[in-house]
Amino acid sequence: MTAVADTKALKISEKGAMMPSSPIRKLVPFAEKAKKAGKTVYHLNIGQPDIETPQVALDAIKNYSDQVIEYSHSAGFESLRKGMANYYHKMDIDVAVEDILVTTGGSEALIFAMNTCFNPGDEIIIPDPFYANYNGFAVSTGVKVVPVSASIEDGFALPPIAEFEKLITPKTKGILISNPGNPTGYLYSKEELEQLRDIVAKHNLYLFSDEVYREFCYDGEEAFSALNLKGIEENVIMIDSVSKRYSMCGARVGALVSKNKEVIATALKFAQARLSPPTLAQVASEAALNTPQSYFDKVKEEYLGRRDILVEGLNKIPGVLCPNPKGAFYCVVRFPVDSTEKFCQWLLENFEYEGQTVMMAPASGFYGVKGKGTDEARIAYVLNKESLQKAVKVLEEALKVYPGRK
Amino acid sequence: MTAVADTKALKISEKGAMMPSSPIRKLVPFAEKAKKAGKTVYHLNIGQPDIETPQVALDAIKNYSDQVIEYSHSAGFESLRKGMANYYHKMDIDVAVEDILVTTGGSEALIFAMNTCFNPGDEIIIPDPFYANYNGFAVSTGVKVVPVSASIEDGFALPPIAEFEKLITPKTKGILISNPGNPTGYLYSKEELEQLRDIVAKHNLYLFSDEVYREFCYDGEEAFSALNLKGIEENVIMIDSVSKRYSMCGARVGALVSKNKEVIATALKFAQARLSPPTLAQVASEAALNTPQSYFDKVKEEYLGRRDILVEGLNKIPGVLCPNPKGAFYCVVRFPVDSTEKFCQWLLENFEYEGQTVMMAPASGFYGVKGKGTDEARIAYVLNKESLQKAVKVLEEALKVYPGRK
Repeated sequence: MTAVADTKALKISEKGAMMPSSPIRKLVPFAEKAKKAGKTVYHLNIGQPDIETPQVALDAIKNYSDQVIEYSHSAGFESLRKGMANYYHKMDIDVAVEDILVTTGGSEALIFAMNTCFNPGDEIIIPDPFYANYNGFAVSTGVKVVPVSASIEDGFALPPIAEFEKLITPKTKGILISNPGNPTGYLYSKEELEQLRDIVAKHNLYLFSDEVYREFCYDGEEAFSALNLKGIEENVIMIDSVSKRYSMCGARVGALVSKNKEVIATALKFAQARLSPPTLAQVASEAALNTPQSYFDKVKEEYLGRRDILVEGLNKIPGVLCPNPKGAFYCVVRFPVDSTEKFCQWLLENFEYEGQTVMMAPASGFYGVKGKGTDEARIAYVLNKESLQKAVKVLEEALKVYPGRK
Repeated sequence: MTAVADTKALKISEKGAMMPSSPIRKLVPFAEKAKKAGKTVYHLNIGQPDIETPQVALDAIKNYSDQVIEYSHSAGFESLRKGMANYYHKMDIDVAVEDILVTTGGSEALIFAMNTCFNPGDEIIIPDPFYANYNGFAVSTGVKVVPVSASIEDGFALPPIAEFEKLITPKTKGILISNPGNPTGYLYSKEELEQLRDIVAKHNLYLFSDEVYREFCYDGEEAFSALNLKGIEENVIMIDSVSKRYSMCGARVGALVSKNKEVIATALKFAQARLSPPTLAQVASEAALNTPQSYFDKVKEEYLGRRDILVEGLNKIPGVLCPNPKGAFYCVVRFPVDSTEKFCQWLLENFEYEGQTVMMAPASGFYGVKGKGTDEARIAYVLNKESLQKAVKVLEEALKVYPGRK
């Protein structure tokens, strides 16, 4: 018998159909076309910094001398976990080695956290707009995202606790924040976090706190870790990553950190199934812990300069609103246009100023509430100052002639 | 208000509770105690080869000269995917670059495949015993594993197709094989695979084929890829990994390979959410594609020698049954004992022969059917010949005095 498959009946899963495409990458084909047409495209769409990885990390790779690239422990090399615990102590975050599970990027840490704490159909409240991939992790694990609206007029401050209360149902099992925030750059104050603590404690929820931009705070502000909130030690899972801190996004090393021993023990079972986080990247990450303070001072100063150029420049353009972010290296900007989906595509397809144009990520992909943010875009200020200045000029000129201008 | 959490009500998820612990690692505390007591422990329990990683891969790491460790494309570096397509062509497996998605190990490829093709509650049939972590991936994704029994008396040949037919329900969406097999070392013949093809075609199932041990076939045999089965091109998803091929388990680079474009497009959405596979490991993996044939010849000869020492040695011990594996570097062995759970623990806790003992993985953790394989153990022959000879001797002596001997 020769079999012939009835391929019509082969189906993709419901999750697969629901999985969102990346809002950051969907304009890529238009950008490629623009480049082929000879335009310079300033990439403000993606958080891939141009900052150099610390030399200590690069040196550790060059000096890697093992003859077999072996698995590490499923929780990561113990030496790395010890080094991370020391790093947290320096940051005034009191965690022990056994509270730390090394993961393959912050992405995997979030997937482990969701699989560990939530059943399919459970709900997680997230201030809106939020990092678009949270949707992907939620779909992967069957968790339902419930957005609570923050607003650009308030600079994306924490929504009033009453708004959270309205959304809590018997299915609500957790709250997820990004602090400092991607895509908004908003830095929650200690007071805001204590408001969150109270609602977390009242309803006994998990609090997932994505703190991968901890180092990038400006204007004398500092990030307050959710791990330091008193009284909800068992509820907090902190998500971390070396990607942005050491400008080594491609390493894929992150961490799930919690004082809840059952959470760690359960997440470890998910970690064991995938054997280990990447060994070479762990070697680089461990070395990166020795990055001198001068590196961070320099990087922070650089980002601060970039932010100021961008935010001041954008706010000078008539009709543009750009809250001044206190952290990370993103901002969400409102443009006086019909639709940023159209505007961003038009910039790539139909516009150039002195041979240059700009690529941004339409903010709608970062909003959980449909129809919100349609006149906003996320900008990552990961380009040098000169390029940012030129990009602002391009946007200014573009808005003068964009047909969908409001 | 100072909040105090009612931590009693904080619950771990159902998935988290269901996740199996690793059967390979659960005797680790006993092994550590044995070592502290001064015993030499021969580790036959885990598939971490002692074979050196190819020099070309190690050199590529030493020569890594980028100043920023950046994300790759979510599907992996295009140069790596092109190199992999060439490699498959050499192996007579006809796939194009766009059929390949680079993943973080074979583990992630399987999770993507399950999330892409199955809804929670869907069933996947797997010849039993099987690689224990398949359970973990199934629990993670909500898929139900339905084991179909292979037997040690038949050397773990493919169960009769009639046995598969008995297990097919409206929920059955796929079959998963490992070929050559972990833990059995069994290599499916082309004829067996064609039987599988027929049932896959008849019921229009997905066929997941884990082929990470492709290079390790003995006695003149060769692995036949499921991708070369005619008539079910859209149904097959091949899982691959560089871990064993190049003895670089810690790299965490694998691949999901399929000619089904909808599967690839959907899996890519899951891949985009986690941004990219590890960059440094991809650099090593791309270089490893230039590993000279002499490396594989030498490694294969080494494993063959090890297999022969192990299998011949074990079968000479009265009451021991060890089918001769044609591939991979594992075998499942029957011992004349009450329980290999007890026997393996006893070896570490209560036995030594000339200061040595052996660590094996009880096979029960590899069986989907409870109560099967309780007198079997999985052995990985990843130690040098001298150690293997000594390990066989230890087992021979141990069986003379083990109190639970049958």
